[in-house]
Amino acid sequence: MSKKEPKSLSPLLRCQAGPVDVTGFDPGATPGYPKDKQKEDGDDLRSDVEPLLDDLQERLFAAGIDDSNAPRVLLVLQGLDTAGKGGTIRHVIGMMDPQGVHIHSFKRPTDEELAHDFLWRVERELPRPGQVGIFDRSHYEDVLVQRVDSLAPADEIERRYGAINEFETRLVESGTRVVKCFLNISRAEQKQRLTERLENPEKYYKYNPGDVDVASKWDAYMDAYSVALTRCNSEVAPWHVVPADKKWYRNWAITHLLIEALGDLDLGWPPAEFDLDAELARVQALPEG
Amino acid sequence: MSKKEPKSLSPLLRCQAGPVDVTGFDPGATPGYPKDKQKEDGDDLRSDVEPLLDDLQERLFAAGIDDSNAPRVLLVLQGLDTAGKGGTIRHVIGMMDPQGVHIHSFKRPTDEELAHDFLWRVERELPRPGQVGIFDRSHYEDVLVQRVDSLAPADEIERRYGAINEFETRLVESGTRVVKCFLNISRAEQKQRLTERLENPEKYYKYNPGDVDVASKWDAYMDAYSVALTRCNSEVAPWHVVPADKKWYRNWAITHLLIEALGDLDLGWPPAEFDLDAELARVQALPEG
Repeated sequence: MSKKEPKSLSPLLRCQAGPVDVTGFDPGATPGYPKDKQKEDGDDLRSDVEPLLDDLQERLFAAGIDDSNAPRVLLVLQGLDTAGKGGTIRHVIGMMDPQGVHIHSFKRPTDEELAHDFLWRVERELPRPGQVGIFDRSHYEDVLVQRVDSLAPADEIERRYGAINEFETRLVESGTRVVKCFLNISRAEQKQRLTERLENPEKYYKYNPGDVDVASKWDAYMDAYSVALTRCNSEVAPWHVVPADKKWYRNWAITHLLIEALGDLDLGWPPAEFDLDAELARVQALPEG
Repeated sequence: MSKKEPKSLSPLLRCQAGPVDVTGFDPGATPGYPKDKQKEDGDDLRSDVEPLLDDLQERLFAAGIDDSNAPRVLLVLQGLDTAGKGGTIRHVIGMMDPQGVHIHSFKRPTDEELAHDFLWRVERELPRPGQVGIFDRSHYEDVLVQRVDSLAPADEIERRYGAINEFETRLVESGTRVVKCFLNISRAEQKQRLTERLENPEKYYKYNPGDVDVASKWDAYMDAYSVALTRCNSEVAPWHVVPADKKWYRNWAITHLLIEALGDLDLGWPPAEFDLDAELARVQALPEG
């Protein structure tokens, strides 16, 4: 990391306590990005931070090998279609050792999932000790699409905000660092990205006619996000609003939020749980051919 | 890929039909590696092949979005401790989009796993349509460590070779491309790598005293591997012996085996399953602010 980079990005992006209005944030902003730096591209990001991210992630992974109480990190990615959840995973999580990563993409709930409480399917996908978990969508869908489309009764939606806060508090207390990011794109940028998916045959697979139905409910989604970010912006698991119109900024910002979360764990390397000299002697006694 | 690279690496590394003796292969060899090329390092491998691997993997991923019959790829990594299974995942699989990858590391079976047939836990971790699955160890442990340490009766071990062949045949027939690699290191190289883990506090976590116990049963493991590679070297799911003393060669070779497996699928991009013009009109009608 360049010395000019911010000491801590998280405070610049996290929501203040009190009512949150997601429409009040600029999707094109670049808070914390060093003014003297050129526009970042993927390769720059990689060469700048990959060794650091790699080192921090390996310490976490190492901590989890023999210790079921080792910490975990959970990155929650939320945002409307085209906001860049997939691109973040590809470019940011793609810099990490895949052995230490657990990614889950939450789709429309199955019948089996609907037969359980909304957190049932989420519990099953939590990162294990030493892992970085990534939720591509999450339990927040249960207070977003379910609220906008009235897929659950109003009192059930209401109950969920509290249930989410209790759930996340329990996660944090049991050693999981929770990093919640709302990828904030503008309507104009979303329209542009949807158009690109229709203009390039290699991107047709990313296009879903239902995305336009969702896009046309923009204001209802902004309201639902504002309520969710207001109600579930706890001290232990605060929300970050990540401006996402500029992909390079989004990748840079989420990489730094992860680096900060991993760095805060302040992990050393696990000590040898064996007699070093005795083991060296045993290894030296092995034949070579 | 440079034009000088082999048209197909797989035939150079796959085992011929008939009895296999794994001790007959040179762990330091570099079959198929272009003679006019410099020793490969990680960055070279990345810049040479990452765009191609990326393109092929994205086609597979795209195929799996809406088609439960889409193909899958399964990479099986076997080898003694320090052979480089983890390093392969980190450096080779680390070049792929993590969204399309499913990695599972098979440990000593749990009580629940032991209460089922040996393939039960394997079935649960198979790649889904469009995914590349990676097995760090696999169902072959059930005819390797279990044979060497007599953890199952001899007739049960004997039964498993046939069961594995039937299982893998079914996988292939249902659309999974199976790429099996035995990472072949020498005793001298293993001893060197074990020593390094004891000399560097950042590597203590990779060291397990049990590894020396396993290393001391070298000949028994070579026998068990030879039998497994002989008995389960089917036409549809052949074994490859990958020389693994040189890490750069191991990474290069497995990358190319994956590229060949993905390339053989010959996947185009999924066609639009919607009315393109109508959707473009709908997107254009979305407001921008």
